[in-house]
Amino acid sequence: MEYQTLHWKGDATGSLCMIDQTLLPTEFKEIDCWTVEGVWEAIKMLRVRGAPAIGVAAAYGVVVGTRELREASRQDFNKKLTEVVKYLASSRPTAVNLFWALDRMSALALKESSLASLAMHDRLLEEARRIHVQDREMCAAIGRHGSELLKSGTGVLTHCNAGGLATGGDGTALSVMFAAAAAGKSIRVYADETRPLLQGARLTAWELQQRGIPVTVICDNMAAQVMKEDRIHAVVTGADRIAANGDAANKIGTYGVALLAKAHGIPFYVAAPSSTFDLSLSTGDKIPIEQRSREEVAEGFGRQTVPEGVDVYNPAFDVTPADLITAIITERGVVQRPNRELIAAHLAEDAIA
Amino acid sequence: MEYQTLHWKGDATGSLCMIDQTLLPTEFKEIDCWTVEGVWEAIKMLRVRGAPAIGVAAAYGVVVGTRELREASRQDFNKKLTEVVKYLASSRPTAVNLFWALDRMSALALKESSLASLAMHDRLLEEARRIHVQDREMCAAIGRHGSELLKSGTGVLTHCNAGGLATGGDGTALSVMFAAAAAGKSIRVYADETRPLLQGARLTAWELQQRGIPVTVICDNMAAQVMKEDRIHAVVTGADRIAANGDAANKIGTYGVALLAKAHGIPFYVAAPSSTFDLSLSTGDKIPIEQRSREEVAEGFGRQTVPEGVDVYNPAFDVTPADLITAIITERGVVQRPNRELIAAHLAEDAIA
Repeated sequence: MEYQTLHWKGDATGSLCMIDQTLLPTEFKEIDCWTVEGVWEAIKMLRVRGAPAIGVAAAYGVVVGTRELREASRQDFNKKLTEVVKYLASSRPTAVNLFWALDRMSALALKESSLASLAMHDRLLEEARRIHVQDREMCAAIGRHGSELLKSGTGVLTHCNAGGLATGGDGTALSVMFAAAAAGKSIRVYADETRPLLQGARLTAWELQQRGIPVTVICDNMAAQVMKEDRIHAVVTGADRIAANGDAANKIGTYGVALLAKAHGIPFYVAAPSSTFDLSLSTGDKIPIEQRSREEVAEGFGRQTVPEGVDVYNPAFDVTPADLITAIITERGVVQRPNRELIAAHLAEDAIA
Repeated sequence: MEYQTLHWKGDATGSLCMIDQTLLPTEFKEIDCWTVEGVWEAIKMLRVRGAPAIGVAAAYGVVVGTRELREASRQDFNKKLTEVVKYLASSRPTAVNLFWALDRMSALALKESSLASLAMHDRLLEEARRIHVQDREMCAAIGRHGSELLKSGTGVLTHCNAGGLATGGDGTALSVMFAAAAAGKSIRVYADETRPLLQGARLTAWELQQRGIPVTVICDNMAAQVMKEDRIHAVVTGADRIAANGDAANKIGTYGVALLAKAHGIPFYVAAPSSTFDLSLSTGDKIPIEQRSREEVAEGFGRQTVPEGVDVYNPAFDVTPADLITAIITERGVVQRPNRELIAAHLAEDAIA
């Protein structure tokens, strides 16, 4: 089945259409967001998720949120734009791509201060589409670079969903697997189900199945055993924010998987666009970790699994220290044994590989 | 609330009554088993679970299964007994206490070959009750020995349920916590929810809440993060079978937790009765690992979470190598840094501590 994680419908007065990922894998349904509140809610409730996809959704969200000011003065338009950007930024605190996309939209409006609101609004849609297209190209480049790291016959473990559903294109971690398979390599993917919201079981398994790549779902706590049984030869995950020294925030559980990979001598790769780097943070300790609701853990499947009144702790992300990361794969290439200097050099390169 | 995980009702023609643990924490319901098929089903379906509780249930199951032969010849009685023992042994392959209890019942019948069937059957109930009482005493002794390892102010992580619900008494790992709390020590327990069947979220959290001990439920994949945040100062789990060298089989995920504990410099304790040792197995590689159904993972919450047709791997146990185990706590005392020699000495001691 052909599907688009998210796409814009119509001209600048149109809407943002997205797959409601909370309903997969049992139901495939698209939602049309006509208001910025709808976009905010879709990001907050993880109808759209994954750092790159959140960035693209937020860019389109700015277009949705300023649509009614097309005929207004630029002063009023700018005021609304500032409000909309601030509001969308409040949806999820960890994914840096969200802020990156919003900053890019704001910067454009600041630069194009002489345009009338209507022209400005059209330009914003154009910019959002550009972010989307670049995201797609970024995914393809990550796949190209990363697939060279996988040999045929490899068992790959991944955590959460860093697939097409997490981006505007083919994904980050999964793009590596798609590219390896497209190059004729035989791989089998083990997908951690990824509690509490099961993005691995629901989304990663679904995407790999759609592409005809063999996939086996395991519970998160089975990863060590599957490694011990020599079924895993590489781990590839995405990232939501990477500090200047290479410490990488990603879905809760990633840090544990990285420790288990190290204990079994298995390489651990992070695949993410260069926009995931936040060089303003010297280390991962500075990355804010989103805390999510008790209900996600205690009543995650429409059934109560934790007794009433018992505490639940639900951090949505953790940080994998750079020294556990074998390589970071970006659209620019591969940074082996990442550290502050290698990352700075990688991001400074003028020529993109 | 006072509760008994399982108990015998009436005389030798009575029934085995057990809490249906699959319904907790939202429903507290007891089931009466009048047939050996009912006992087998309860063990297989995890209505009763936990290695020591399975042993006690199986012992009572022998009484249930031979009840109709009370008036028969001893030859017929013995034939039925052999059938019943073989049948009950097929319910779950990993828990050694199951075989231990069944062997003990068979050995008694062999020894008391001169008794008539009726007297023999009465003796079997007496023996099952004795196994049950000894289990209760064993739990208390484990608690006594283990609680000396916990300081006040300690955060303790546990995996699955090694509590009163897993035994005929106060539990193994949880008995350590109950005893520490009873000794006035302040502890907080972090309970891995323990996918796929959520014994940690459903049962461990429920038991600790009943006893007024602070407990926080986390998803399995959060354990590493909680350790990194310095919330955990000791890990205590149960075991289903321990090889002669100290390798310990326990609920899937335990091995991973042990690796994470090591990476964070946190002591990892195994609490189990001495009947959990299987000295016929030189190492843990020989322990058979039960594979359970796809549905437990894919439809575990009454809702489908894995796409149709996608593979699932569902090993129910893993083996933690002895070198990751700081100490094994039994009813006899504590074996620090367990190895083949220390374990042999521990089990050979005539005087039980």
